[in-house]
Amino acid sequence: MASWIEIKEDSDFSLRNLPYGVFSTDGPKPPRIGIAIGDHVLDMSVLAADGVFDDIGFDVKTITGETTLNSYAAQGKDVHSKVRKRLQDLLEKETKLGSLLRDNQGRRARALVPMNSVKMHLPMAIGDYTDFFIGLHHAVICADVIKPGAKIEQLCPCFYNLPVAYNGRASSVVVSGTPFHRPRGQVPVENGQIVSGPCRKLDFEVEFACFIGKGNAFGQEIKVDQAEEHIFGFVLMNDWSARDIQFYEAPMMGPFNGKSFCTSVSPWVVPLDALEPFRTLPSETPMKRLLADYLTGKKTKSAYNIPIKATLEANSERYDIATCNTNNVIFSFPQMLAHHTRGGCPLRPGDLVATGTLSGPTKAESGCFFEQTRGGKEPYELKALKMGKGSVQRGFLEDNDTVEFRAQVSLGDGLGNVGFGVCGGKVLPAL
Amino acid sequence: MASWIEIKEDSDFSLRNLPYGVFSTDGPKPPRIGIAIGDHVLDMSVLAADGVFDDIGFDVKTITGETTLNSYAAQGKDVHSKVRKRLQDLLEKETKLGSLLRDNQGRRARALVPMNSVKMHLPMAIGDYTDFFIGLHHAVICADVIKPGAKIEQLCPCFYNLPVAYNGRASSVVVSGTPFHRPRGQVPVENGQIVSGPCRKLDFEVEFACFIGKGNAFGQEIKVDQAEEHIFGFVLMNDWSARDIQFYEAPMMGPFNGKSFCTSVSPWVVPLDALEPFRTLPSETPMKRLLADYLTGKKTKSAYNIPIKATLEANSERYDIATCNTNNVIFSFPQMLAHHTRGGCPLRPGDLVATGTLSGPTKAESGCFFEQTRGGKEPYELKALKMGKGSVQRGFLEDNDTVEFRAQVSLGDGLGNVGFGVCGGKVLPAL
Repeated sequence: MASWIEIKEDSDFSLRNLPYGVFSTDGPKPPRIGIAIGDHVLDMSVLAADGVFDDIGFDVKTITGETTLNSYAAQGKDVHSKVRKRLQDLLEKETKLGSLLRDNQGRRARALVPMNSVKMHLPMAIGDYTDFFIGLHHAVICADVIKPGAKIEQLCPCFYNLPVAYNGRASSVVVSGTPFHRPRGQVPVENGQIVSGPCRKLDFEVEFACFIGKGNAFGQEIKVDQAEEHIFGFVLMNDWSARDIQFYEAPMMGPFNGKSFCTSVSPWVVPLDALEPFRTLPSETPMKRLLADYLTGKKTKSAYNIPIKATLEANSERYDIATCNTNNVIFSFPQMLAHHTRGGCPLRPGDLVATGTLSGPTKAESGCFFEQTRGGKEPYELKALKMGKGSVQRGFLEDNDTVEFRAQVSLGDGLGNVGFGVCGGKVLPAL
Repeated sequence: MASWIEIKEDSDFSLRNLPYGVFSTDGPKPPRIGIAIGDHVLDMSVLAADGVFDDIGFDVKTITGETTLNSYAAQGKDVHSKVRKRLQDLLEKETKLGSLLRDNQGRRARALVPMNSVKMHLPMAIGDYTDFFIGLHHAVICADVIKPGAKIEQLCPCFYNLPVAYNGRASSVVVSGTPFHRPRGQVPVENGQIVSGPCRKLDFEVEFACFIGKGNAFGQEIKVDQAEEHIFGFVLMNDWSARDIQFYEAPMMGPFNGKSFCTSVSPWVVPLDALEPFRTLPSETPMKRLLADYLTGKKTKSAYNIPIKATLEANSERYDIATCNTNNVIFSFPQMLAHHTRGGCPLRPGDLVATGTLSGPTKAESGCFFEQTRGGKEPYELKALKMGKGSVQRGFLEDNDTVEFRAQVSLGDGLGNVGFGVCGGKVLPAL
């Protein structure tokens, strides 16, 4: 799968990947759909307008006429697989379709945009955003931090029986690179006085999320074995959290302002097909469990083995926070979608569905400071990525900290990586 | 405020009201924006296209080119007040603008549509839907049902200090008249076995909600004293709830599938201006409380005195459930919006923001069966609205039950009512 376009060995964007994004360039052209390939963005609107997809059998206006991926995602998996095949055929070194792109200098110049010249946008208009809570170690450790000695099934009796979730705030989801101000909010009363001001326990959360392609009708469930038909692709997600605000407001109704100030996603939506080689089993639960029929599917390798690396940048130095993995979950995406729609709730193209924090069992695998520092009580030492550059301590995030997530997988055959680009954001001081 | 259009004495839609909705008629015309007046819908797209609003100074394409109210709502309160004034001038008996509508037979025929010939649609594309929990008696009674003897501030320490809320599911909000199937879901394990099936504790909730007009930018709060500038108008809302599913899933993350199968809203958005005469104070809290600065506004009469009547229809007979009131709240809409945006969360035109259940202190004022029947344990007797037609008992809702909410207020001067139309829905058997 070598390409006639130069793809560096460490690139996230090999021919195996071909993730979708929405980009713009300087000038009057509105944002448009592109594909990441090496250090370039392939402008899909140029190819679609030039008829390169005309024989595939879908409405190319879902590419040429749109500033988000929603309409294209709604076309369904068959179309996406055919377009993906066409793109690989166009881009591979020994392409038989050379005249369509490689050997057409004019079209190449219009269609291939250097990645360092583009601005990325939120790839989809998000109708609803759902955040699950299916990370095994995250739940187990958080339970113990919240109430020392407590097991998660004591705090949340359904935890092992169904994929727990809450509705997040769609309007505050932003694309990687968007900075945000430390949120203000209310925290528990001190000395009989209301306490209102900037968050004192600002945290990140390492998550993995899918965007919905084809939706389901009001009242109709999605069966677990058909659920992958509804997944368009995946992104990395940082569910920034204000722990002090969250824990004060959440006892009856769950998280609200503690989460709704910012949620960051990586800009490139990696197709389901690109992750096929990286399937694995979800985590085992500590005790044997029964599952309801609607959660019991045929496909066993329904999770993915993708390490996600989190780093902190402070004072121009980068530090290692942790490496999580998308397989630290006790339910799969198909199970999440089956549960989500079990009562008839409609999912729509562009909806964002996330896993919750993907911690492993050790501190070096913990996906938030809340776990690493036991609620801020035990500051954690982050080592610099560059040898000899020392370390910094954090209880929670400080102003001007930048947190970034990266994930890249390969088959080790030298034929290219599947990566997500950066999911990053910077904490600005409170207003 | 008499009109040259006949408005029956008991009509919801006097000249004082003029609520906005989205309607369609048989034929090829797409859904369009209308105003309810007596037994008619005034087609705003006809008036706008004919130039009737041209001197008001806003983009009339926000009416003529749209199938929802979002773009029009985003124009802001000044525009809405001017358009309202123009509509009252057009429709009042002694109109000075007779040539624009009353005396123009052709335009009248095109613009005035009998209400019984229209189909109503969801008035706005809802980006996010937020449900608050600010009903005083609802919270107090529910706390005691959940844990006999418990006070709400024990279960939810912040209850009196900030307006508690959760994010609802925007995709499952439907317009009045849309039936839904009893949801299926998981409930607590019985005898070591997973229990999954149709909800056994299906409930309604009497709520009041606003649609957002002008939004706020990411990171920017809305100040409590400016918050009404962001409110487009109000609807009645039924937050249908599956209590067994809800209480099993909610301990850590709040309600999810217990609420996301259906939420009904009345079709007519009653403008803020129409409710001006019905202002009142929010409820007193049982103990004196301090409020954070961001929740402390100048306007004291920030709630509304609007009784909402809930009825049940079963076997072709209608029964009285309860009469709630929009003033049974301990926070106002401006306080809700100020809190919602305090951390920088963006509200967007079309967002739906609801109060939570509006129960009064007695069973006859309780806005859900959960309160009336103490969680289903004490069946409640509903009396028929027609004398001599007996009564029915309910613990929770049964299949084929229809629940409807109505609200109508007037100044008692014979010059017309402000009502909301019906907010109703029917429970179909589980699939």
